[in-house]
Amino acid sequence: MYVRDTIAAISTAVGEGGIGIVRISGPASLPIASSIFRAKSNGGLKSHRFSYGDVVSPANGDLVDEAMVVYMKGPNSYTREDVVEIQCHGGTLVVSRILSLALEQGARLAEPGEFTKRAFLNGRIDLVQAEAVMDVISSRTDASLALAQHQREGLLSKRISTVKEGIVYALAYVEALIDFPEDDVDVAVETDVLGKVAPALAELDALIEGFDEGRVLRDGVSVVIAGKPNVGKSSLLNTLLKEKRAIVTSVPGTTRDLIEEVVNINGLPVKLLDTAGIRESEDQVEQEGVRLSLERIPRADLVLFVIDGSSEFGDDDATILQAIGNKSYLVVRNKADLEVNAVLPAACIGPVVAISTLTGDGVPELRNAITNAFMHGHAIDGREFVAVSKARHRDALLKARGSLQSFVANLEAGVNMELLPVDLRDALDAVGEVTGETTADDVLDRIFSSFCIGK
Amino acid sequence: MYVRDTIAAISTAVGEGGIGIVRISGPASLPIASSIFRAKSNGGLKSHRFSYGDVVSPANGDLVDEAMVVYMKGPNSYTREDVVEIQCHGGTLVVSRILSLALEQGARLAEPGEFTKRAFLNGRIDLVQAEAVMDVISSRTDASLALAQHQREGLLSKRISTVKEGIVYALAYVEALIDFPEDDVDVAVETDVLGKVAPALAELDALIEGFDEGRVLRDGVSVVIAGKPNVGKSSLLNTLLKEKRAIVTSVPGTTRDLIEEVVNINGLPVKLLDTAGIRESEDQVEQEGVRLSLERIPRADLVLFVIDGSSEFGDDDATILQAIGNKSYLVVRNKADLEVNAVLPAACIGPVVAISTLTGDGVPELRNAITNAFMHGHAIDGREFVAVSKARHRDALLKARGSLQSFVANLEAGVNMELLPVDLRDALDAVGEVTGETTADDVLDRIFSSFCIGK
Repeated sequence: MYVRDTIAAISTAVGEGGIGIVRISGPASLPIASSIFRAKSNGGLKSHRFSYGDVVSPANGDLVDEAMVVYMKGPNSYTREDVVEIQCHGGTLVVSRILSLALEQGARLAEPGEFTKRAFLNGRIDLVQAEAVMDVISSRTDASLALAQHQREGLLSKRISTVKEGIVYALAYVEALIDFPEDDVDVAVETDVLGKVAPALAELDALIEGFDEGRVLRDGVSVVIAGKPNVGKSSLLNTLLKEKRAIVTSVPGTTRDLIEEVVNINGLPVKLLDTAGIRESEDQVEQEGVRLSLERIPRADLVLFVIDGSSEFGDDDATILQAIGNKSYLVVRNKADLEVNAVLPAACIGPVVAISTLTGDGVPELRNAITNAFMHGHAIDGREFVAVSKARHRDALLKARGSLQSFVANLEAGVNMELLPVDLRDALDAVGEVTGETTADDVLDRIFSSFCIGK
Repeated sequence: MYVRDTIAAISTAVGEGGIGIVRISGPASLPIASSIFRAKSNGGLKSHRFSYGDVVSPANGDLVDEAMVVYMKGPNSYTREDVVEIQCHGGTLVVSRILSLALEQGARLAEPGEFTKRAFLNGRIDLVQAEAVMDVISSRTDASLALAQHQREGLLSKRISTVKEGIVYALAYVEALIDFPEDDVDVAVETDVLGKVAPALAELDALIEGFDEGRVLRDGVSVVIAGKPNVGKSSLLNTLLKEKRAIVTSVPGTTRDLIEEVVNINGLPVKLLDTAGIRESEDQVEQEGVRLSLERIPRADLVLFVIDGSSEFGDDDATILQAIGNKSYLVVRNKADLEVNAVLPAACIGPVVAISTLTGDGVPELRNAITNAFMHGHAIDGREFVAVSKARHRDALLKARGSLQSFVANLEAGVNMELLPVDLRDALDAVGEVTGETTADDVLDRIFSSFCIGK
């Protein structure tokens, strides 16, 4: 299915760190590693043992770095092939030099995701699990991570396999009937087959229905705080940022640049648009006023339309409401600690949440309203949540459901028995596209090319 | 000497990668790791064995990630303490979550460089070697890397220890003379002591003298290409960039952002200032003309003053020459393929290198002239080069030399024997500051705080 050559790549993140790893996988892993590594501990490289020694250039004997090296004999490895990992100091040049040595000794530079692709091609994991590996890496909240881990562990694959089993059962049944036509399709047979197909259809429905929540957990949502000046937008922003702020809040010292823009709201990764403003002073944010709100609205999945409940609903408010149009939004009536003077116009039909950024009243309710807007009442306790989160999967499952529904309709309509297997095989193919059994090579290539190098 | 608690940190670079590592060091490493890791391979955690399993939250049983875990029983570890490394998927959240679990189980977040600091405090390496670890990580060229590796391996420490031995010998001798004053300091004794001190002084001279080259190899140099428009600055820039360009040129696919600004010239890391211009079109670069050249000159260690040898030396050229002032510079006479018409003014006393960016003639000579300007004829073959590269080391060695010279002067002047050990002890202290034996705690703190987290 693929050329079993030996591949190598830097598997740690790009940049300076304490430790860097060069990973090699394939039949020549051990000879390549042995040619560039001089073990100082006795016995050299043995499977799953950590050896200390020096990485040395075979060409000129130069010391490149000291390293810890582990050899993992296939199939007890990530790819099921022989794998060697070389742990060195995490400098850009050092890891590059070691990678270069591996390449000079005959390894080929791995393509993005090629280690995981091999794990898939060698049958250690299915395609759903393989795709989840990248989700695990890019997860931004515990709930997203839990969803990704469930997929990586195979819990989603398990649900899909119950669908597959139903289709396979129906297909076997129908093909048996074709082979032995003396047993005519009577009502009992039809009921039996439908009884097998029904749970598969129900599971397909459930999987397809869960996609919205799955996608939102995986990709996050964009939320814009819109409102005229001085209604408390910045205070709201700061309040939302403060609560369960960044994912790594509990880990002082690591840089937060990468995730500063994503706020964790009840486990939902929420991207607050125009984060440059977040870091500006309150004054600056307020200065931007209506104009910025209008600019940001089109890019939002949800708008938090902030009004000052203690003042009248004015022209600026109306302008923003109009800009929101058909977007999903919540009316955030701020200053709930003061007398309510705002009268909402008839056009303002969004759910209203009263808050006070001063006292904190209503903020938990607002956070729940934000997540409910996306999760439709499903709890975002990723722990129990096994869902489809990729459009590719959803589309294939829709195709499978269409074929299966068509099969049921044909069966009930009593069409020629010979035609029935066609829909079932289409459904099976569609399900196989998700798990990788029938996925086209170019689709596979596209999937893995979105992986990071070295995974 | 330090609180032997258990520390933990993320040891891989910040950002997304295939693999991330959380490192734990200290007496509780194994219990902490055991409480959050469920090995799937038989036998659990044994020293220097790679175990596969799941990292699980002890609080709620949630799966955080699958992981490969290695336990290294002290003293056979980086810090000489018990160390555990947890290799997981390289996502920012995943590694942070695992680190959080380790902290919840009683580890303390490691300070920058604290693992290496412990390796030093536990006597596995001296301070020179410890400091070199960070140089290894931040090296930008093979020659810088080789210099750093030599220091990390202990080759510089070895040279310093010969200095120390000379001083210790002299001190023992002088103290013996004080204890047994019947042996008066006669000429023979003086000759003998001086004979022991002379090689130490010579080595100090050599080490101090080598600092300029060492520093340049470690920190790199800033070179500015200055010249009026249309003399071929951009062509020269492109030529220099093309030859042995980036360090990781041979490694397609890894990002180059971090090192794009550093050009490797004969192994010397050369920062070409204002690299934004490098990526601009030739036209734009030329437009900037004289103004940009003048702005950049003050920040340069060396100026490449480019003139068009086929035209007359004009007012613009004179302006730039004046701006260069006392800076170190080379006159790069471009367009050597054309007739020479430029007549250099008397004030232009810098070495002249004739090149043609069109034919490439003279470019290797220019590269050699650039490196010679810094290396003073020393070959930049890092392989043989063991040098001091840090101002802190150079300053301490200067202090040691001063004390030693003072000792020699006093000895020769026949001062009171009782006074002689003072200078020798000062010299010894100064040398100990380099290797860490007498380094003040606040200096140690400062040194390791410049390390990356997790090293």
